[in-house]
Amino acid sequence: MPRHNNRAPDQLRPIGFTRRYTRHAEGAVLACFGETRVLCTASIETRVPAFLRGRQSGWLTAEYRMLPRATHTRSEPRPNGRAHEIQRLIGRSLRACLDLRRLGEHTIIIDCDVLQADGGTRCAALNGGFLALVDAVDWLLAHELIRETPILRTLAAVSVAVCDGEVLIDPDYDEDCRADTDLTLVMDEAGGFLELQANAERQPIPRELLDRMLDCGAAGIQSVFQAQRGAEANDR
Amino acid sequence: MPRHNNRAPDQLRPIGFTRRYTRHAEGAVLACFGETRVLCTASIETRVPAFLRGRQSGWLTAEYRMLPRATHTRSEPRPNGRAHEIQRLIGRSLRACLDLRRLGEHTIIIDCDVLQADGGTRCAALNGGFLALVDAVDWLLAHELIRETPILRTLAAVSVAVCDGEVLIDPDYDEDCRADTDLTLVMDEAGGFLELQANAERQPIPRELLDRMLDCGAAGIQSVFQAQRGAEANDR
Amino acid sequence: MPRHNNRAPDQLRPIGFTRRYTRHAEGAVLACFGETRVLCTASIETRVPAFLRGRQSGWLTAEYRMLPRATHTRSEPRPNGRAHEIQRLIGRSLRACLDLRRLGEHTIIIDCDVLQADGGTRCAALNGGFLALVDAVDWLLAHELIRETPILRTLAAVSVAVCDGEVLIDPDYDEDCRADTDLTLVMDEAGGFLELQANAERQPIPRELLDRMLDCGAAGIQSVFQAQRGAEANDR
Amino acid sequence: MPRHNNRAPDQLRPIGFTRRYTRHAEGAVLACFGETRVLCTASIETRVPAFLRGRQSGWLTAEYRMLPRATHTRSEPRPNGRAHEIQRLIGRSLRACLDLRRLGEHTIIIDCDVLQADGGTRCAALNGGFLALVDAVDWLLAHELIRETPILRTLAAVSVAVCDGEVLIDPDYDEDCRADTDLTLVMDEAGGFLELQANAERQPIPRELLDRMLDCGAAGIQSVFQAQRGAEANDR
Amino acid sequence: MPRHNNRAPDQLRPIGFTRRYTRHAEGAVLACFGETRVLCTASIETRVPAFLRGRQSGWLTAEYRMLPRATHTRSEPRPNGRAHEIQRLIGRSLRACLDLRRLGEHTIIIDCDVLQADGGTRCAALNGGFLALVDAVDWLLAHELIRETPILRTLAAVSVAVCDGEVLIDPDYDEDCRADTDLTLVMDEAGGFLELQANAERQPIPRELLDRMLDCGAAGIQSVFQAQRGAEANDR
Amino acid sequence: MPRHNNRAPDQLRPIGFTRRYTRHAEGAVLACFGETRVLCTASIETRVPAFLRGRQSGWLTAEYRMLPRATHTRSEPRPNGRAHEIQRLIGRSLRACLDLRRLGEHTIIIDCDVLQADGGTRCAALNGGFLALVDAVDWLLAHELIRETPILRTLAAVSVAVCDGEVLIDPDYDEDCRADTDLTLVMDEAGGFLELQANAERQPIPRELLDRMLDCGAAGIQSVFQAQRGAEANDR
Repeated sequence: MPRHNNRAPDQLRPIGFTRRYTRHAEGAVLACFGETRVLCTASIETRVPAFLRGRQSGWLTAEYRMLPRATHTRSEPRPNGRAHEIQRLIGRSLRACLDLRRLGEHTIIIDCDVLQADGGTRCAALNGGFLALVDAVDWLLAHELIRETPILRTLAAVSVAVCDGEVLIDPDYDEDCRADTDLTLVMDEAGGFLELQANAERQPIPRELLDRMLDCGAAGIQSVFQAQRGAEANDR
Repeated sequence: MPRHNNRAPDQLRPIGFTRRYTRHAEGAVLACFGETRVLCTASIETRVPAFLRGRQSGWLTAEYRMLPRATHTRSEPRPNGRAHEIQRLIGRSLRACLDLRRLGEHTIIIDCDVLQADGGTRCAALNGGFLALVDAVDWLLAHELIRETPILRTLAAVSVAVCDGEVLIDPDYDEDCRADTDLTLVMDEAGGFLELQANAERQPIPRELLDRMLDCGAAGIQSVFQAQRGAEANDR
Repeated sequence: MPRHNNRAPDQLRPIGFTRRYTRHAEGAVLACFGETRVLCTASIETRVPAFLRGRQSGWLTAEYRMLPRATHTRSEPRPNGRAHEIQRLIGRSLRACLDLRRLGEHTIIIDCDVLQADGGTRCAALNGGFLALVDAVDWLLAHELIRETPILRTLAAVSVAVCDGEVLIDPDYDEDCRADTDLTLVMDEAGGFLELQANAERQPIPRELLDRMLDCGAAGIQSVFQAQRGAEANDR
Repeated sequence: MPRHNNRAPDQLRPIGFTRRYTRHAEGAVLACFGETRVLCTASIETRVPAFLRGRQSGWLTAEYRMLPRATHTRSEPRPNGRAHEIQRLIGRSLRACLDLRRLGEHTIIIDCDVLQADGGTRCAALNGGFLALVDAVDWLLAHELIRETPILRTLAAVSVAVCDGEVLIDPDYDEDCRADTDLTLVMDEAGGFLELQANAERQPIPRELLDRMLDCGAAGIQSVFQAQRGAEANDR
Repeated sequence: MPRHNNRAPDQLRPIGFTRRYTRHAEGAVLACFGETRVLCTASIETRVPAFLRGRQSGWLTAEYRMLPRATHTRSEPRPNGRAHEIQRLIGRSLRACLDLRRLGEHTIIIDCDVLQADGGTRCAALNGGFLALVDAVDWLLAHELIRETPILRTLAAVSVAVCDGEVLIDPDYDEDCRADTDLTLVMDEAGGFLELQANAERQPIPRELLDRMLDCGAAGIQSVFQAQRGAEANDR
Repeated sequence: MPRHNNRAPDQLRPIGFTRRYTRHAEGAVLACFGETRVLCTASIETRVPAFLRGRQSGWLTAEYRMLPRATHTRSEPRPNGRAHEIQRLIGRSLRACLDLRRLGEHTIIIDCDVLQADGGTRCAALNGGFLALVDAVDWLLAHELIRETPILRTLAAVSVAVCDGEVLIDPDYDEDCRADTDLTLVMDEAGGFLELQANAERQPIPRELLDRMLDCGAAGIQSVFQAQRGAEANDR
């Protein structure tokens, strides 16, 4: 079964990052992967959670939501278990890119609001959220609220599915529904893993298949890094 | 004090309506008034609330939310008293345009999500919501789920403020903050009022001033009707 | 169709205000309009909301509730959208009567509990709430917690309906159900509007009809001011 | 220390029951014990909870609330642990007076709203709630919805405190605050206990003292039965 | 009808208290009465509720929960009215054993989690909770956070039912279901009552029967005191 | 730094599974990994969620909770983001072992309540939960509610950490706190992965290190399968 628009198995959908998509947030990026569109904003607050107070450390937290009609059928815009799971993944992954002590007593809140969903919303949120974080850090530096960047490494995410035995990168919603297996990779540019989540929807994943999926994801994620660099370059 | 971009007191900001802004909803309109941007979707469900069951009547309800960073400072994305008030206004106003019996046992849900706020979000939501409703009704007709349109009249909304004694139409956020008085007009094309809400933020409104505000709003609202007609025409 | 008890179209129902209806609150007024009975209490707290802290300003907020069996059928005593809308109207209107800076760092909470509903509960709550506010301010002055009264103007409210083409003041529940149109007026004694809310339940309201409704309300509201003055006089 | 108004230790405060206090409920009784005033309404619904469906049995449930300013300081009108405890007591006690099978598939909801509190609100709620129940049952009989009364016995409640070693019946709020011990008695007219709740606020209660408290309560509760009978008689 | 395992009417089920059942809490006791098993932990926090701040007094509060499958059918693990009632009973009873001023500004939280229910869970929670409290106080003394024990008296609890006219102590779940009447006794070792709760499930309780139930409970509760002393002794 | 009790890096803590730990649930297993103790119950309900109704398919869902004092400091027993994440992992993993159509219209609810936490609670919950599921399926077969077992494969889970560069299996709480990296493996007996979750707490994970962690986990997980088989054998 050919992919939509004749995509190759290892080819991502067209990627778009629009920075400064809205005007009030310190970082505001619209991330598009094919028909999936996620608005990622970064907000800075000059307080930290109770468990960090007085510890000379900042914090980063994330929220993930779907607009009620981002999907085929309308859903109530309340946080559910799936949203909790995804926003914890986003928060953990982005914190793994930061030296929190260099952030001072600031909290950065990454809000990921899915305007339109067609598969891959968590990766789009991670990729756009990272760019929004970069912009918020630039804002902190420009306003001399911190002295050196707390960003230790870059981050990109991609998902890989297995449909009818074939390894497919960046599946859309229809492919997701047919997939036996689903893998989310969050990596830095040096090729290390920040997060890895695989789940066998229908069939256990043999080690050999897992290895192929990891290889496919690690190769394809380079397109995301490239699109992120492009979005930063455009901005200058 | 001149208005931003040298707007005349009776001049609205640039208006934009983008139909089919997202792909899943039966109606999906991005309404822009200057820097204010509200995504209005219309969703159709084949059920009615308990109080209407078995009565051969449809229903329409509305929800209004701000994305957390639609405003200068981040706010929690929970419904508050202001949101309740606005969504009740939207629901009442749009129901006043409908013959609910002709809708059959369908509920139309109008979701208004403010992507970016710069004053006038409730009017933008009403104006975009009406167009989304039109599209959802066209969808019902096209799918032969209803036989004749339940839409009895068109609707547009505009707000009028008094700043330093001057009557200003469609105030932006800065003007809103300085206003002594605030009026929201929801009208049909024949010049009748569907809703009217005036409140004296600082000074009681003499009857003569109220009359001037009503005159100003009724004249300016024609630009909104014109923009709505343009959006429908473009679509063909 | 004659009104209940042969009321004239421009005649309000019998009005009663019982001050000191309960003993603990700084202000406690039972407001009766015909069979509608609302208990309005004013409570003083020596704190202000976070957004006003350190700004030498007081605050006023309102809550509106129905006892579960104030109405024909029992309702759960939880705040719903309608209650939010009404309590925001009450709070805004009463704040428009106050110089909040003269209130010092006090918050006045106006609680409006509907004991029995027969139409016009929001106006009864506004009218009784204003008297309760007056009593709470007198309490503050008597206890020398503030030096001069923060009350800038008096307030009264009345509603006007159109039933079968006839303009009727202070409609009861049965008239409300039959009304095409509903207008709530909140005015000061000088004839200025503090709040104005009109909504077309079934038919858009032509400007000429709106003008007649405003005239009718402005004339009839004098009976409320008179009853409020009587309630204050009795008290001496 | 003499009691307020020179009450004897075994003397209750003046008791008042006003039936038909509000007009919409099937039973509506204002119960006054001195300055304590509780509005008790009985509402009939033609449904039963899930666990009773299809079992040919009715149900009775109770809710207890305080208006925010029933007390010296304002409290949020949300159900708390104390309210849960009291409404369970009221529900259990009143169900113990009923043959639920004779009630058919009806649920009676007893709402007890404290308008003003001066000690003894739970007993006032029980005593007024029982009369509201009687009126609701009469309504069911009058409308031929049930054939024979489900009421098996009458009910009254009284509280007994020990202050400075002295046994006092029907303590007011000031006495309650000073009490070492608190006992609530719910009895039928034949002298049987429906509920008994004693708690040692400061000192364990020796058996001999408990016996004296029970004697005092059982004697004094006759005044409540008498006042309830008077309220029923007045009604004819 | 003979009791399960041929228990005599005045005989309790086998009692077991396992101290240090879990390792993190300052007190952690598994209380077993027959098949009923409740895990009672005592946690110490160095803060007091708002109403006690600055008053040189400590506090004790309790929470009671059932694991979802402690019972025959699964229940949602949310606090309901029954749980509120029971945890208030536990908190009040244990506070009646303490001189709160000697506790310093500490709050002791008693968590009672029912692992398996077979009747008598509230008494098991009270009995195990008291031992957990003793251990937490010992911890405070050992860490020199308080100087003298705040425990004024010992506490034990037992329930008494009437089934088919027979007075039975410590009923199990099957007996509970058949009981006409239910009595919970909380006493100190000197024979005084800390709490007493009787309720007539089906039949009013004549005074003479109440006296017999009190006698039976007061005799049987000695076994609980003995088991508690045994659990303390084992520990040395 | 040697491991507690001189454990080898690839050695799990002592494993214990106690089946029928409580008596009411269809499956009830206490899973112990060292000092970590999780009570896993399986409950059968004869209904399915709305989205499966009429589809001839069963369902399995999981809940994960900590008792308030399972940990060093007390936590409120409310579901938080972490609990949502874990219970979704448990549900997905166990469903991957089932042919849901063979389950008929039954829902199995796996409740995992952590009595004592010392690291590895999610793996203990998965391992105990699988055994509870087996017992619940046996119950369904024994009661002839289903005809053939829906269990397609066995399941075990283990976690692997990297501390100071060393790969350690089944880390306890102290090791967890020091770990740079954390991996959870859920596998079937044939060596396929059902779920895989890796996260870099401090350092990105190079592919080579990931491979070593996977190897270590896949080897060590055999001890879990062995202990599960032992628990089943004991039962006969």
